[in-house]
Amino acid sequence: MADEALFQFLHNELIQYVYKSAEQGEMENGRCITRLENMGFRVGQGLIERFTKDTARFKDELDVMKFICKDFWTSVFKKQIDNLRTNHQGIYVLQDNKFRLLAQMSGGKQYLEHAPKYLAFSCGLVRGGLSNLGVKSIVTAEVSAMPACKFQIMIQKM
Amino acid sequence: MADEALFQFLHNELIQYVYKSAEQGEMENGRCITRLENMGFRVGQGLIERFTKDTARFKDELDVMKFICKDFWTSVFKKQIDNLRTNHQGIYVLQDNKFRLLAQMSGGKQYLEHAPKYLAFSCGLVRGGLSNLGVKSIVTAEVSAMPACKFQIMIQKM
Repeated sequence: MADEALFQFLHNELIQYVYKSAEQGEMENGRCITRLENMGFRVGQGLIERFTKDTARFKDELDVMKFICKDFWTSVFKKQIDNLRTNHQGIYVLQDNKFRLLAQMSGGKQYLEHAPKYLAFSCGLVRGGLSNLGVKSIVTAEVSAMPACKFQIMIQKM
Repeated sequence: MADEALFQFLHNELIQYVYKSAEQGEMENGRCITRLENMGFRVGQGLIERFTKDTARFKDELDVMKFICKDFWTSVFKKQIDNLRTNHQGIYVLQDNKFRLLAQMSGGKQYLEHAPKYLAFSCGLVRGGLSNLGVKSIVTAEVSAMPACKFQIMIQKM
């Protein structure tokens, strides 16, 4: 519980800091999101190296996704992804019904506009993790009612 | 191990981000340190509330310090403080022989000049924690040989 809190508080500070330093330099919202996403990317790269140190080689893309949904998600967000769907053509949708980084916020639609900044880092985290497993992707997130959240992963064929 | 890595990677990103955004605005080193320290302060405030939720009331200042050295340190830095000393007049010195956030860096004196930015957040963390326990303090850190580190806490009498 302690470690969990540490990550959450630090994540909040990070968002605040990025947005505050943006105010001074008149950076727009989109660039803040990009920066958070990039930080997530590098952290994801580092994490996946640790996590997969002792795992067997992955069979295929779906196998990699299952690892992300189970092991990776549990380590970082303390629960598994609730639902994984795919169109078998390179698009995966990961549904988390109670996403940890949104769980502290008021439910419903009131703060919906603030959701993207709380998701950018995590999108990067997934993209970075996948990237170090050799899967190039674009990761976006979508919220219709907090704290549920859908992550969409589009695999970039190389 | 995973959570540990998450904090460490995020902490590194934070430092990099603060220093990088400083470059653009020509902010000097001291202000970066202050910002990191302030972020640590707020995170420390939040953490201590969670940690002390179910603990008994503290007897005195020394009791608070022992809690910081044992429970708080173990939760955040995965080990206890190795040595706690005090002059019984409001100065406490906490010695950590293998400080977690310096443990990844090369030992000896080569990167000694970079140590302060890796300690600022943690100084704030301690100050914030103490502050929410009603102990106002100034916290500084000192490194003579990595990864050992001494935190000095000067209690501010109110």
